[in-house]
Amino acid sequence: MRQTEGEPSPTIVIFGASGDLTRRKLVPALYSLYRKDRLPPDTRIVGFARRPWNHEDFRARLRAGVEEFASKSFDEKTWNPFAARISYARGNLNAPEDYGGLRSFLKELEDEPTNRLYYAATAPDFYTTIVEYLGSTGLASEDGGWRRIVVEKPFGSDLASAQELNRALHSVFDERQVYRIDHYLGKETAQNILFFRFVNTIFEPVWNRNYIDNVQITVAEDLRVDQRGSYFDSAGVLRDMFQNHLLQLLSLVAIEPPASFDPDTVRNEKVKIFAAIRPVALTDTVLAQYRGYREEERVAPDSKTPTYAALKLSVDNWRWQGVPFYLRSGKALAKKTSEIVIEFKRPPHLMFDLPEDYELTPNLLTLYIQPNEGIYLKFETKVPDSARETTSVDMEFRYGTSFKGVELPDAYERLLLDALHGDASLFTRSDGIELSWKLIDPILDASDTPDAPPLAFYDPGSWGPPEADEFVVRDGRTWWSGSDSGKDK
Amino acid sequence: MRQTEGEPSPTIVIFGASGDLTRRKLVPALYSLYRKDRLPPDTRIVGFARRPWNHEDFRARLRAGVEEFASKSFDEKTWNPFAARISYARGNLNAPEDYGGLRSFLKELEDEPTNRLYYAATAPDFYTTIVEYLGSTGLASEDGGWRRIVVEKPFGSDLASAQELNRALHSVFDERQVYRIDHYLGKETAQNILFFRFVNTIFEPVWNRNYIDNVQITVAEDLRVDQRGSYFDSAGVLRDMFQNHLLQLLSLVAIEPPASFDPDTVRNEKVKIFAAIRPVALTDTVLAQYRGYREEERVAPDSKTPTYAALKLSVDNWRWQGVPFYLRSGKALAKKTSEIVIEFKRPPHLMFDLPEDYELTPNLLTLYIQPNEGIYLKFETKVPDSARETTSVDMEFRYGTSFKGVELPDAYERLLLDALHGDASLFTRSDGIELSWKLIDPILDASDTPDAPPLAFYDPGSWGPPEADEFVVRDGRTWWSGSDSGKDK
Repeated sequence: MRQTEGEPSPTIVIFGASGDLTRRKLVPALYSLYRKDRLPPDTRIVGFARRPWNHEDFRARLRAGVEEFASKSFDEKTWNPFAARISYARGNLNAPEDYGGLRSFLKELEDEPTNRLYYAATAPDFYTTIVEYLGSTGLASEDGGWRRIVVEKPFGSDLASAQELNRALHSVFDERQVYRIDHYLGKETAQNILFFRFVNTIFEPVWNRNYIDNVQITVAEDLRVDQRGSYFDSAGVLRDMFQNHLLQLLSLVAIEPPASFDPDTVRNEKVKIFAAIRPVALTDTVLAQYRGYREEERVAPDSKTPTYAALKLSVDNWRWQGVPFYLRSGKALAKKTSEIVIEFKRPPHLMFDLPEDYELTPNLLTLYIQPNEGIYLKFETKVPDSARETTSVDMEFRYGTSFKGVELPDAYERLLLDALHGDASLFTRSDGIELSWKLIDPILDASDTPDAPPLAFYDPGSWGPPEADEFVVRDGRTWWSGSDSGKDK
Repeated sequence: MRQTEGEPSPTIVIFGASGDLTRRKLVPALYSLYRKDRLPPDTRIVGFARRPWNHEDFRARLRAGVEEFASKSFDEKTWNPFAARISYARGNLNAPEDYGGLRSFLKELEDEPTNRLYYAATAPDFYTTIVEYLGSTGLASEDGGWRRIVVEKPFGSDLASAQELNRALHSVFDERQVYRIDHYLGKETAQNILFFRFVNTIFEPVWNRNYIDNVQITVAEDLRVDQRGSYFDSAGVLRDMFQNHLLQLLSLVAIEPPASFDPDTVRNEKVKIFAAIRPVALTDTVLAQYRGYREEERVAPDSKTPTYAALKLSVDNWRWQGVPFYLRSGKALAKKTSEIVIEFKRPPHLMFDLPEDYELTPNLLTLYIQPNEGIYLKFETKVPDSARETTSVDMEFRYGTSFKGVELPDAYERLLLDALHGDASLFTRSDGIELSWKLIDPILDASDTPDAPPLAFYDPGSWGPPEADEFVVRDGRTWWSGSDSGKDK
């Protein structure tokens, strides 16, 4: 899977090179890879955008981004040779002739044959255009080297538009050339879920409906919409977080053990999960908006866009039947945290004389995706110096303690490197994308109909609306995540 | 099980009251219980020994012991009323008339009816005599209050002598009155084994031959025999450590879930384990002596007494068939530690491309009995910023961290209180004692025969003889305990 020596050096062509993603994420990630000597030799980076910049203007702008955002600290000596490989090709995404110009520019720059990674880092409206012109100008055709395209999220805004985009992509590229990015999958802790489950022997035997009571996935942001009011008000939290990040995390928790780490083997298993999720009942949905959202900049004053949602999902297969997956995500919550809590069933029988109303805390396994990356196992132990009292304690593994001094790489480092190496394991396949939209669509479609879940409201800085607590309490359960499942957050 | 109000106040009569056990363990434990207000009201303590002491002499001696050894710090205001309940009855353990004197003394001291706990804290030679005279002078007969007897270890020196002692006890006491003490069972961390296994749901499903590869129990002492040369040279490590502590720890790891914490329910399960252990093959035995042992004080210069042993035991039942239990214990080892390591099987299949000769560390669950009490779970995680490397990390629970400021009580506190309350769960029953001797006897019997395992030698401060490493290596295994299973020992 890794690049073999003697392969042509790749060129990374970034569309939308003047945007934030390029400056804050992509080029800092590439710089960090370069510092770690992981980029293929002589990798070229070409930015394509409308701004009237020359190469030096572009490099200066990127340098500032690297200084601020790269996981590896800035170092002049490394920057100079790295920057020398960066160039800027001015052009308009909507102008086919500018793609011709890009082609000529690349011809000058590259040897033949060449490998080329296109990166669509633009607003999603442009994806189809970019793909179309890459096709029509011959930039997509493989000349002995490969052509690949990375497509940023959001990938569509519903099932129909995602299908449309897939059609556009497939009219120019084979599926094997398409890398749909979800940076959540590049996070160390997300990647570690499969390692945790399948390189250890003691968790997999209890990882099923016989022992697990429910699974809770929380992706909480403490920020309000801020500058993103315009985008967010048309998207809402379901499109922004659920269709991609939360469903991806769910799939990592739920999949059967893949036979190998071959990209299609892993993605086949994920698709099986998406296909096994029962259509979400609107009664199993809580939608809410934080108070003050309608006064945010570029948000409609009568907006009904949810900034928070909680869903209960069921996975209809032998492993998970009867185990609810509670997913929730929102903006302006009490704190920023992404975590997965596996709540185990209580013991079938207690040999100890406990008070009749004694509420034994169940075993909880918490996977902290970020921040405070780690794994916590809450279990019961005897209270020292008591006869038979029990109390909950945590067995803890923290990245910060176990890997002292190791800076966790940015998710984009791993994902860019994988795309350069042709490893699509951590990218979403077309069928996966469409199935995940299929799950979210019915809730989106119900809005403005009488069946729509009522919009609840919550205070910024809270854990969401009371309706979301009631939502799990009615099942006799409680939200563990974000509360006391970890100790020192 | 707990004392009901209005019960007569108990008297604790200690035989061998001038000895070390009384001064360092029993009375400090009773004092700590008193400070915690856990002793039954108006508990009396009577010491019986030959020394020509008066009450004040005895109290002064005990006071020094409490100041030095009690888990609760010494406090004059508490000591005075506690000491006022202590008295001294001079007598010779071999003189029946002195038991008559004791009876008169107690009659003066106590109300009727009375509860009385006898504690045989003498050299083992005296146990039978004490029991006989307690019987013949009527001190054992219950007058409406109870009579119980605590018998210290060693309980016999082989099966025959243990049976003999049981016969002597049963000729005077019912089994329900007999409390055979093994202080290891009073340790918080030993008690917690059953809580850990049976109040949590996630460990029990993997606690069997399907998932466990082997179990390792290490009780290592760093001290040499020191003052105890005479006793130790006639006993040896098998009698001193295996027949009691190590087999008891094994039983806690191995028993089936008891239906209740009723003493006989728990002890029935333990006896089932002892009965299921296959007779130890002499070829599954390593005996060794530390270099320099024969030069110790009161040790025979040609002594063949083992100061170290390692045994491989098999438990022939459905849960454990095929899972070896490796037990080892010795003096003058690298450090003092008591720990149980559960080594799990390796994953049945690895989805990851690992180098062909890659040795995956198995999952290890380590229960630290002492010191550094805690539970460690060694598992594999992805190496951050690598593609697919894995490394072992620990999930850690430490008493010192989770129960900050809580001083773990001495084992004798719990055991004395249980005996006063009539709870024999943590004491060994006659059938259990005899079965455990039955396991050790064949090895003892083989000594001086041609079948005897050869005596190996090891350097003080090491982890035992090379033969003990070879012993597990020949099974394709390795000793985990004491090495790197915990991190900061």
